[in-house]
Amino acid sequence: MKHLLDIADLSREEIIGLMDEADNFRRALEGREIKKLPTLRGSTVFTLFYENSTRTRSSFETAGKWMSADVINISASSSSVAKGESLKDTGETITAVGADAIIIRHPSSGAARHLADQLDAEGRATHVINAGDGRHQHPTQALLDAVTMRQRLGHVEGLRVAIVGDCLHSRVVRSNVDLLTKLGAQVVLVAPPTLLPVAVENWPVEVSYDFDAEVAKADVVMMLRVQAERMHGGFFPSHREYAALYGLSKERAARMKDTAIVMHPGPMLRGMEINYAVADAPHTAVLQQVHNGVHVRMAVLHTLLSHGGDVAAATAGPSTTESAEA
Amino acid sequence: MKHLLDIADLSREEIIGLMDEADNFRRALEGREIKKLPTLRGSTVFTLFYENSTRTRSSFETAGKWMSADVINISASSSSVAKGESLKDTGETITAVGADAIIIRHPSSGAARHLADQLDAEGRATHVINAGDGRHQHPTQALLDAVTMRQRLGHVEGLRVAIVGDCLHSRVVRSNVDLLTKLGAQVVLVAPPTLLPVAVENWPVEVSYDFDAEVAKADVVMMLRVQAERMHGGFFPSHREYAALYGLSKERAARMKDTAIVMHPGPMLRGMEINYAVADAPHTAVLQQVHNGVHVRMAVLHTLLSHGGDVAAATAGPSTTESAEA
Amino acid sequence: MKHLLDIADLSREEIIGLMDEADNFRRALEGREIKKLPTLRGSTVFTLFYENSTRTRSSFETAGKWMSADVINISASSSSVAKGESLKDTGETITAVGADAIIIRHPSSGAARHLADQLDAEGRATHVINAGDGRHQHPTQALLDAVTMRQRLGHVEGLRVAIVGDCLHSRVVRSNVDLLTKLGAQVVLVAPPTLLPVAVENWPVEVSYDFDAEVAKADVVMMLRVQAERMHGGFFPSHREYAALYGLSKERAARMKDTAIVMHPGPMLRGMEINYAVADAPHTAVLQQVHNGVHVRMAVLHTLLSHGGDVAAATAGPSTTESAEA
Repeated sequence: MKHLLDIADLSREEIIGLMDEADNFRRALEGREIKKLPTLRGSTVFTLFYENSTRTRSSFETAGKWMSADVINISASSSSVAKGESLKDTGETITAVGADAIIIRHPSSGAARHLADQLDAEGRATHVINAGDGRHQHPTQALLDAVTMRQRLGHVEGLRVAIVGDCLHSRVVRSNVDLLTKLGAQVVLVAPPTLLPVAVENWPVEVSYDFDAEVAKADVVMMLRVQAERMHGGFFPSHREYAALYGLSKERAARMKDTAIVMHPGPMLRGMEINYAVADAPHTAVLQQVHNGVHVRMAVLHTLLSHGGDVAAATAGPSTTESAEA
Repeated sequence: MKHLLDIADLSREEIIGLMDEADNFRRALEGREIKKLPTLRGSTVFTLFYENSTRTRSSFETAGKWMSADVINISASSSSVAKGESLKDTGETITAVGADAIIIRHPSSGAARHLADQLDAEGRATHVINAGDGRHQHPTQALLDAVTMRQRLGHVEGLRVAIVGDCLHSRVVRSNVDLLTKLGAQVVLVAPPTLLPVAVENWPVEVSYDFDAEVAKADVVMMLRVQAERMHGGFFPSHREYAALYGLSKERAARMKDTAIVMHPGPMLRGMEINYAVADAPHTAVLQQVHNGVHVRMAVLHTLLSHGGDVAAATAGPSTTESAEA
Repeated sequence: MKHLLDIADLSREEIIGLMDEADNFRRALEGREIKKLPTLRGSTVFTLFYENSTRTRSSFETAGKWMSADVINISASSSSVAKGESLKDTGETITAVGADAIIIRHPSSGAARHLADQLDAEGRATHVINAGDGRHQHPTQALLDAVTMRQRLGHVEGLRVAIVGDCLHSRVVRSNVDLLTKLGAQVVLVAPPTLLPVAVENWPVEVSYDFDAEVAKADVVMMLRVQAERMHGGFFPSHREYAALYGLSKERAARMKDTAIVMHPGPMLRGMEINYAVADAPHTAVLQQVHNGVHVRMAVLHTLLSHGGDVAAATAGPSTTESAEA
């Protein structure tokens, strides 16, 4: 594993290794007064974001800084993109400046893979981490979701996970289906027909248009964000109808299993995707997801930069928990 | 003191304690070759700015970095706000990522208090620092102003401070009136009737429309910025008339007391609010205000993050002046 | 040398000293596992960019961080400029906050000099580094170009350097002509008459409209970016014609000397200024230029901040290669 581009590239063992490593980082940080590890001192990490983001960019930046890496942010609006430079040349330039890793978010599906392929073809050592590419993949999101499920429910295998809402435009759903299937969970996509992915019948999932029927059966109810910024046309009649049919209302939440949890990749549109009170209820794990996100990103950066992507080596060594700088 | 939201929340002793602590930081830094303290190593501070700012954001960022905190900047244009997230959810998310403190600037009056209340209600330990909320408060500005007055004039008590210009839209004036009154200074607001706050007759200040009458009596002439970006309508007939009546001209400056000083929160509109030469004259303390701003923000961050907001403990201990890292 | 504003301010010895120091930094970093020097610990460097930039801003930021400086970024869109503040006042404010150096990029020719003059007049110790001012100067670009030529070709003296394309709007060409002439290289500008600088006949260069005639004679073919964002009018008939006459095609590249190299300040417009394959060919030094850029900027920051601009002292001392922090 030189890059982290797509959950499909990871074996079941690598996924579990990264999840374990994230838990290790969480424990290592909770046990110390000074939340700062020397792990990546002298490493240089660039974030290259072609789309707005609060949580993902700041989560990666925090992960890098807590391991003492130098983190340098580039946003599309201030980048050479405006001057017509290709993604390959931007990546090569950042590498030549000194990036050990490039964390990229891009509106085009496949952009992270394209960047990694171009750098590999030129023999660069730079690691590429996909922080979301179009409607394709968001692998660290799926990893943090799985870590959260395991913390809350003890395991991922055998869980029934209902993913609800705009599955068509969501990269979160694609990464989650890949990961959850590999770990032996059962996934059902709940969405109106217009918001289901093309050729969903070939995916290893069940499909339902009936949220009411599914809500009582799920161990995890994962609500998706309605990605209005990716919609140019009438994907559903009205926000009111969407909320009525696919929103997580109090009534629906009341019919969930006692042990079931609610997840959301954020940012949440309260009142549409999810009821205000439900979003704050104890069975909702949204903030735990965010919290785990930092540790997952620490695990990914650490594995790629300190152990050349060898997950087994990363989790075996003592480096995660080594003492902070004097 | 868990948060710093409003000067009204601070006792006279806490104000003076923070001012003393700012002076301590100034002396501690001036006496060392390497301007870097280990004070906040392992702390994570987020700036969350919904309005443009050079001096305030970079001043807080500098304060944090000089104490070895990790500082992560979020600006509104790149934030989840564009995706419809509430301020509460943004604050909760940043807290879950790992923020020990959130420094917020927001165009709405009360936004910082709202954020703090929401986080407190959920039991979060995150400290909120108000870096300016609408036309309401800008507490670190008032603190740095008081530190500057005390450095220049030896004391704040008993001073006559004329605050001149756009008092209606100014958060600087509200914080300064609160603080100066608490410390026993006498404040007179000098402005056209259209730029005085509503119900100013209930404020503990004098009011005057006549700058010429006041300029000779003041120990401090504090000019305000004309906040054109908050004005939608005819608050004064013309820039020329405003400058003639409420600008600090050479003639007016010449009539100031020999010991009096000129202050301005910046950025200055030279030629309108203040004459070019007057802005650079020795009695003008504008850059000293900026310089003190960093030390005030160090004092605030240090007090909140290292001493749980206990000002007395923060100023008593040796931690401010402890030696830099080896 | 208190500031770095213009290549014309540097002696031949200072230029060579900075180039040597850049090579020293390159070797010092390549030889260590942890790419982090304590050289500028406790120094505070501000970048103040009024124009978009990926490579220059991130290169300076990387240079600063690798020497352990605190680096604070200000971009025009988030600055006080929108509020009407003058460049002088912005510079004074940043200095008062705590900047030891201000790295400025500005669309107006002369802006960096203006800022430096204003700060000097007030007796400030702040160092100003010109990261590109309008169509005037970009001195670190010329330095990194010379370092690259020397690495590839062994020397700069006696080289024939063809600078090709939009010489009118280019600050790169002005800095390079100054530097290359001082070091004894021969420069020929190759451009259509509409894209040659006014009064070019007074420059110490040859001029040619005929790229085909020049390409076979040059030791260095330096392609320039077509600065569409600075062009308001018909500087050439069409992109197709420009590419045909002044683009570096495969055919032209094939006629270069065996030892000759291709350079470009980036970002490249492949297909217009330079053929796709030529841009990636072994004789093309574009990424080496970028890589050297970081070391040149380290040399500049180190010389200004640690040695008061005394190049001889900076290169003589052992501080560049001193060991990293324990």
